[in-house]
Amino acid sequence: MTDNANTPISVVGLGLMGTALARAFLKAGHPTTVWNRTAAKADSLVAEGARLAPTIGDALGAVTILCLTDYSAVRELLGDAGLAGTTLVNLTSGDSAQARETAAWAEKQGARYVDGAIMAIPSAIGTAEAVILLSGPRPDFELGALGTISYLGEDPGLASLYDVAGLTMMWSVLNAWLQGTAMLKTAGVDAATYAPFARQIAAGVADWLPGYAEQIDKDSFPAEVSALETDARAMAHMVEESEALGVNAELPKLIKAMADRAIAAGHGGEQYPVLIREFERAGE
Amino acid sequence: MTDNANTPISVVGLGLMGTALARAFLKAGHPTTVWNRTAAKADSLVAEGARLAPTIGDALGAVTILCLTDYSAVRELLGDAGLAGTTLVNLTSGDSAQARETAAWAEKQGARYVDGAIMAIPSAIGTAEAVILLSGPRPDFELGALGTISYLGEDPGLASLYDVAGLTMMWSVLNAWLQGTAMLKTAGVDAATYAPFARQIAAGVADWLPGYAEQIDKDSFPAEVSALETDARAMAHMVEESEALGVNAELPKLIKAMADRAIAAGHGGEQYPVLIREFERAGE
Repeated sequence: MTDNANTPISVVGLGLMGTALARAFLKAGHPTTVWNRTAAKADSLVAEGARLAPTIGDALGAVTILCLTDYSAVRELLGDAGLAGTTLVNLTSGDSAQARETAAWAEKQGARYVDGAIMAIPSAIGTAEAVILLSGPRPDFELGALGTISYLGEDPGLASLYDVAGLTMMWSVLNAWLQGTAMLKTAGVDAATYAPFARQIAAGVADWLPGYAEQIDKDSFPAEVSALETDARAMAHMVEESEALGVNAELPKLIKAMADRAIAAGHGGEQYPVLIREFERAGE
Repeated sequence: MTDNANTPISVVGLGLMGTALARAFLKAGHPTTVWNRTAAKADSLVAEGARLAPTIGDALGAVTILCLTDYSAVRELLGDAGLAGTTLVNLTSGDSAQARETAAWAEKQGARYVDGAIMAIPSAIGTAEAVILLSGPRPDFELGALGTISYLGEDPGLASLYDVAGLTMMWSVLNAWLQGTAMLKTAGVDAATYAPFARQIAAGVADWLPGYAEQIDKDSFPAEVSALETDARAMAHMVEESEALGVNAELPKLIKAMADRAIAAGHGGEQYPVLIREFERAGE
């Protein structure tokens, strides 16, 4: 583990995100090299102390952060650059299959390849709120200048999978909150009045997850708290209330449909996490 | 506000939940009267110190907690009992329209009527984790023996609305976690490994809600963090990844469909809470 600020870093791809990454490295004192197909995009970073690499091959001399449009742009750009001995950290957005394929492709050429995903907007880069997920061979260099680094394991597909899983949680919490807000607006309750209640429920339920996870890992779902068929009655009520209020009922209906399928499959007397069986298979 | 433990309380309806309520009042030292259509269900409570009311009319002499099968059972039972001067706290499960109708019906007969919803299972009653939502005229008696009491306002429909809104949040957090767990299981990650990550995301996003609520109340959605059309690209990726992994994709698809509709309605440059417009209207 070398000292964070001493590791020379290259940043390849200077869109909004790549520029934010390079700037965070510069601020933290890393010797920072940048490269972009259109070199003019590097001007402000060079003014701030970055070195502009004359060629992509030159940039690859340091630990190289890739932040390009997509994975095919990565393969196209690096295809002729000579990867033997290089260290690549690919933060380009993509899916787990692309990450694994690109890892295999790069490793075959002698590169060390780490895949990553950025759970942050460009303006948050460099703060602890920016979460950078990494997977592949465990990095022996520090990227802490970018934010909170989370190393997930050897499988290079993991960063991408955790990223989409996290996004699913993010939008689900937001949508559930919007559903409740829409329901309460029909009674004249404003969004600010309802939000603290929604926040408390979301944070409270989040605390159940580690315990519920044990049921999944044991593949055993005793109804310690509540049986699915009891939940389903309250779900019917949730759907009916949404319809009666004239608000959107699609989210309540999907919640009920998933539970109904698990009950139809014989799991009505078991506890909620048994729905993992429905989530694990392609739906109708 | 009378002292909690001195308020005489009646509990009408001794199913699992009603029995738990009566037991919590007894434990807290309330003089407790119980009534049930089948009187034998009161035996254990009487042994613990409850008084069995000889008639429903007799039970109504104290602040009366109703915990029956449904609202029609409430109307049927109380129809001939004489409600003038009584105080009713109806914790029977039902929707906001039933709560408002029953409030009007009871108040017309001279009763004070508070509607409520219990966000807890029977075994949690009497602990701070049991949340009891109340709405209607502000109670001048204490029900703290039951758990955490939350008074929501004058509209008797509010308790029921907050209840279903909270349940929608609960199942949404659980479903998003199951979706992520299913995705990560394809890479050999067990549920216990993923759960802390899901918990952190859910709790983190919950903290955004009060700020996002301001956008809704101002009906103004500047893209301070991210524009909806940027989110939609990540949503497409989430759907594709679910499909590629062979897990259920219905939840990701619903998330994307709601956003796509808002974009089609011209809100692509605005921020996520603008989706309130989609949640406020019946879907397709």
